[in-house]
Amino acid sequence: MTTSNDLIRGLPSAVEVEGYIETLSNWGRWGAEDRLGTLNLITPQKRVEAAALVREGQVVSLSRDIDPEDADPLHTGIAKVQRFMGIGELEHHLGRGVSRFDGITDYVGIAAHGSNTHLDGLAHYSWDGKQYNNRLVTDTVTSIGGCLELSVRDAYEGIVSRGVLLDIVALHDGDWLEPGHAIGPEELEEAERRQKVTVGSGDVLLVHTGHVARTLQHGVARENGKVRQPGLHAGCLPWLRERDVATLASDAIQDVQPSGYPDVSFLRPIHTVGLVALGLWLIDNMELTELAAACAERGRWEFFFAMLPWRMAGVTSSATNPVAIF
Amino acid sequence: MTTSNDLIRGLPSAVEVEGYIETLSNWGRWGAEDRLGTLNLITPQKRVEAAALVREGQVVSLSRDIDPEDADPLHTGIAKVQRFMGIGELEHHLGRGVSRFDGITDYVGIAAHGSNTHLDGLAHYSWDGKQYNNRLVTDTVTSIGGCLELSVRDAYEGIVSRGVLLDIVALHDGDWLEPGHAIGPEELEEAERRQKVTVGSGDVLLVHTGHVARTLQHGVARENGKVRQPGLHAGCLPWLRERDVATLASDAIQDVQPSGYPDVSFLRPIHTVGLVALGLWLIDNMELTELAAACAERGRWEFFFAMLPWRMAGVTSSATNPVAIF
Amino acid sequence: MTTSNDLIRGLPSAVEVEGYIETLSNWGRWGAEDRLGTLNLITPQKRVEAAALVREGQVVSLSRDIDPEDADPLHTGIAKVQRFMGIGELEHHLGRGVSRFDGITDYVGIAAHGSNTHLDGLAHYSWDGKQYNNRLVTDTVTSIGGCLELSVRDAYEGIVSRGVLLDIVALHDGDWLEPGHAIGPEELEEAERRQKVTVGSGDVLLVHTGHVARTLQHGVARENGKVRQPGLHAGCLPWLRERDVATLASDAIQDVQPSGYPDVSFLRPIHTVGLVALGLWLIDNMELTELAAACAERGRWEFFFAMLPWRMAGVTSSATNPVAIF
Amino acid sequence: MTTSNDLIRGLPSAVEVEGYIETLSNWGRWGAEDRLGTLNLITPQKRVEAAALVREGQVVSLSRDIDPEDADPLHTGIAKVQRFMGIGELEHHLGRGVSRFDGITDYVGIAAHGSNTHLDGLAHYSWDGKQYNNRLVTDTVTSIGGCLELSVRDAYEGIVSRGVLLDIVALHDGDWLEPGHAIGPEELEEAERRQKVTVGSGDVLLVHTGHVARTLQHGVARENGKVRQPGLHAGCLPWLRERDVATLASDAIQDVQPSGYPDVSFLRPIHTVGLVALGLWLIDNMELTELAAACAERGRWEFFFAMLPWRMAGVTSSATNPVAIF
Repeated sequence: MTTSNDLIRGLPSAVEVEGYIETLSNWGRWGAEDRLGTLNLITPQKRVEAAALVREGQVVSLSRDIDPEDADPLHTGIAKVQRFMGIGELEHHLGRGVSRFDGITDYVGIAAHGSNTHLDGLAHYSWDGKQYNNRLVTDTVTSIGGCLELSVRDAYEGIVSRGVLLDIVALHDGDWLEPGHAIGPEELEEAERRQKVTVGSGDVLLVHTGHVARTLQHGVARENGKVRQPGLHAGCLPWLRERDVATLASDAIQDVQPSGYPDVSFLRPIHTVGLVALGLWLIDNMELTELAAACAERGRWEFFFAMLPWRMAGVTSSATNPVAIF
Repeated sequence: MTTSNDLIRGLPSAVEVEGYIETLSNWGRWGAEDRLGTLNLITPQKRVEAAALVREGQVVSLSRDIDPEDADPLHTGIAKVQRFMGIGELEHHLGRGVSRFDGITDYVGIAAHGSNTHLDGLAHYSWDGKQYNNRLVTDTVTSIGGCLELSVRDAYEGIVSRGVLLDIVALHDGDWLEPGHAIGPEELEEAERRQKVTVGSGDVLLVHTGHVARTLQHGVARENGKVRQPGLHAGCLPWLRERDVATLASDAIQDVQPSGYPDVSFLRPIHTVGLVALGLWLIDNMELTELAAACAERGRWEFFFAMLPWRMAGVTSSATNPVAIF
Repeated sequence: MTTSNDLIRGLPSAVEVEGYIETLSNWGRWGAEDRLGTLNLITPQKRVEAAALVREGQVVSLSRDIDPEDADPLHTGIAKVQRFMGIGELEHHLGRGVSRFDGITDYVGIAAHGSNTHLDGLAHYSWDGKQYNNRLVTDTVTSIGGCLELSVRDAYEGIVSRGVLLDIVALHDGDWLEPGHAIGPEELEEAERRQKVTVGSGDVLLVHTGHVARTLQHGVARENGKVRQPGLHAGCLPWLRERDVATLASDAIQDVQPSGYPDVSFLRPIHTVGLVALGLWLIDNMELTELAAACAERGRWEFFFAMLPWRMAGVTSSATNPVAIF
Repeated sequence: MTTSNDLIRGLPSAVEVEGYIETLSNWGRWGAEDRLGTLNLITPQKRVEAAALVREGQVVSLSRDIDPEDADPLHTGIAKVQRFMGIGELEHHLGRGVSRFDGITDYVGIAAHGSNTHLDGLAHYSWDGKQYNNRLVTDTVTSIGGCLELSVRDAYEGIVSRGVLLDIVALHDGDWLEPGHAIGPEELEEAERRQKVTVGSGDVLLVHTGHVARTLQHGVARENGKVRQPGLHAGCLPWLRERDVATLASDAIQDVQPSGYPDVSFLRPIHTVGLVALGLWLIDNMELTELAAACAERGRWEFFFAMLPWRMAGVTSSATNPVAIF
């Protein structure tokens, strides 16, 4: 267990992380106009291979319910979910008793970042005013027009690939990692060895931390007023780039918190370097308890993965329901 | 072409349609507590077979862009799409220049019914105050609590199955069916014969009408003030039940408009009988132009289909992006 | 001080309160079609007299700030305030640098009931399915059409009358009444005697309890899980009817909580009997600290009062800013 | 009548208007920290005098209904009004039949700029990146925090003063001015002479153009694709400054459209110079038909005026209901 007094073993220095912005960069790798980033790594062949993993036809949903009556279950202060009903459409327009059928509609409002399972698009973060592939954030993001580039809309082919779960919880005792537990590349590889699986190019990597399960049961963990969550530390960034992961996903926000750096600029290096430099798409706050059990039961940690974000112009996020199919 | 003066050939009488509520009913078929309706027809084996259709790994998105600046492209008066940006999260909370990274967020509001590609859940319609599987709408749907039952949330395993496109446009001249064109079962079967494909149990049936493409180009078609759209007439209902279609989808709202019945209770029999009696899930207003071309090019009208509605408690709809994968 | 173990002195029985629905009723008093209830008591002559109270021209605002970043300051779980900005309208539509002027706009969402200063319109409550002046709530209030009758829109002439502050806090030690303090008619009259003022027909009665000030400083008061607030007990209802108060307002929700009745039907008798039977408009959660000081300083507890609810069709509430002018 | 081919008589040149930003400026007049602009001109004494105008106690509402079912009656494309109901609060939380009383609530969303009667606060416009009293718009207005300064919240004492209606319609034939009719200072003074009233310091000036009435009856007027509306031309700006008007209000958007300048920077000089340089608060899109009749009937064009914008942090607008009291 990593406590707040521990140094994180193997943590790169802030200067090193700053260097990652350039050394790990995918800018230009798929052309100056590219907007897909690491989704380019999901080739048609990769999808064919992924589909071959559907052997039983069993689906596991990787999202928790989104519930307007519990809009912010992780207490981030950011998540919003609103639902308003329109009951009795025909009666409203035609009068009571005129039609034997009637319609029910709804209006839903959502701020997907925060508590609920959601996709982070490439417009979500900037570093020194730049976004993925050398875009100036002041050009890319506007108040009225939304994200003029790098919207999740660009992922309209969905994220359909091989999914690989690395179950870090299973390397330790208990149902979840301790809040603040920092996962480094060696721990990812320890899970690979234990599970006899290797993360490769175009894969959707799912990291099981137990964070969501723990928080729903025990509430937000804090130490000296700071939120503590398990997650990857910045030393995983070269590994993610080397393995050419297409999408990083977990039942947490990817970044271990605290990240180990006093400078707020390095509060979330996985998000920052991942989204901006690598063009790496992220899926936060999944529900992975059931998936981890399903993998363990089968002794199989690879599966068909699909996430289909909505095709909405100009946004940084999509609340949606990813699935694993065995 | 069917004009407003024509009778619709083979159209069942209103009394016959009323009878469908009982004769075609799936109430109780999967138990008194069932909430999935025709999604029960998508068996694990069906998913395995569907995955086997992924041979090239090519994806076709079946949704148009959802765009807040053109929220209601089909001019239904119902669709709403709003997007609000939160720019400069770190700067807002910490002050200017404190952090080198910054975050962009958004809040999105949507009424999915109407113009945009969306799923109709089983709580969307009632007949004589009842919803699918003998639920009283006054029990099922509440103003504050939303749909207490039959929410699209129940489809959290997604709609993943074999998709079959029946290209009715290709049976006629032109890029789209005439507004008001009524498709009967014989025309569905004519398409089957031409395409050498048979719709079967658990399939997602996609019907290409060209309606969305025509409307975007020429605007809403009206005659004597009534909206005219191509679609299935009520005589298809026994066929849909017999074939055990799991989900009916099209680039229109399924129901031909006008439906051929003067009584408003029969304004949309496919919606009404489909949702309430069959428990048949519907996907309205897809974009099928590209898919029809992709099928024709390959001489193949079956493919892997996936739609992953959001897992939201208490709603009748989900705006989402279905895909076909070849 | 009333503690939770005390009986509330002078509290009418539940049966008596139930009787008030008929005995205190204003139904039909201003005709069967009346929608204004006690606002009928504000005659033109009353407004002229109120205007004569403007002697110094000093304004005291009776609302606290409504702040999206602290949307629910009284922690009711009901209040919602959202604000979204549209920055750079011209730049968005014309491009950067085209116009030297630019416009900023906003979209605001609010659920006025709950924490913020707001007007309760007559459609806000029902008793046995009826609303003011014998309206069936199922006729009056619809999901899509809103309040077809009794909307705050009907108060489009505003609430402009003599305001009278009864400072109940000043009858006791401290800056606020204890949570749960139940005010009866004798205490209202004690304040009248002390202040040498008499509440009369058409007056807006403001009752100073200190509740909002206390809650903002010390948080919500609870005992055995029940919220405790000072306010009027049900025994004030005949007094309010007899005095023909036009609007009842306070820095609380009018009703003492707990109300003294175990039956939930009598949870808020001032609201229930007031809105439904008397047609009495209510203004909840004002900020009265400054007003109480201004009155005490002048030895004058009557003033010109104005509240101008928005003219919105079909709603039960209006967030707005009432003022007192001396 | 001014037609699109006419020059506007007396129209200052664009260079002159640009000069107004400095020559008519109120920056610093009430101190470097001032946020109230021309509302400073409403002195306590002014309010006392205004109250003395309440002689009959008759109220005229100056707002039209705000109606979610007709959210944008002037077809500006900007206005939004949404209303969502919460019906059966007690039933929802406690179950059916538990309580004899029940509550109805609502959530309202509004973009006040555009079609409905609303106040323009001083943060609404910028010129060369500056707002009233030398504020940099990039400091003043933020995406997440809203208007950090110059919010309509600052007008929490309301706008309570003498109102003066100048009925420009009455100087011409017909029920409204022609679209595009440009009002200059000489026409304002002609109305003053006819009505025997003089606009002075601290007054709320209401200008009757008939624009809203005409638009509701005949639709938006366009010529060569440009919207045409009657209103003040830029030559009125020195007059407004000289008379020290506290608030400019009308049943239009103040600015004649087209404004007479080809450069888009001068599209709305009354708004731009008024808000930014003078710190002049504006009330757009009132309903003045009834007020004009009430004034004419009495031969009295001055009255008690009150508008009480909501006390909301960080916004540029307030939808509200101003009233005139005779």
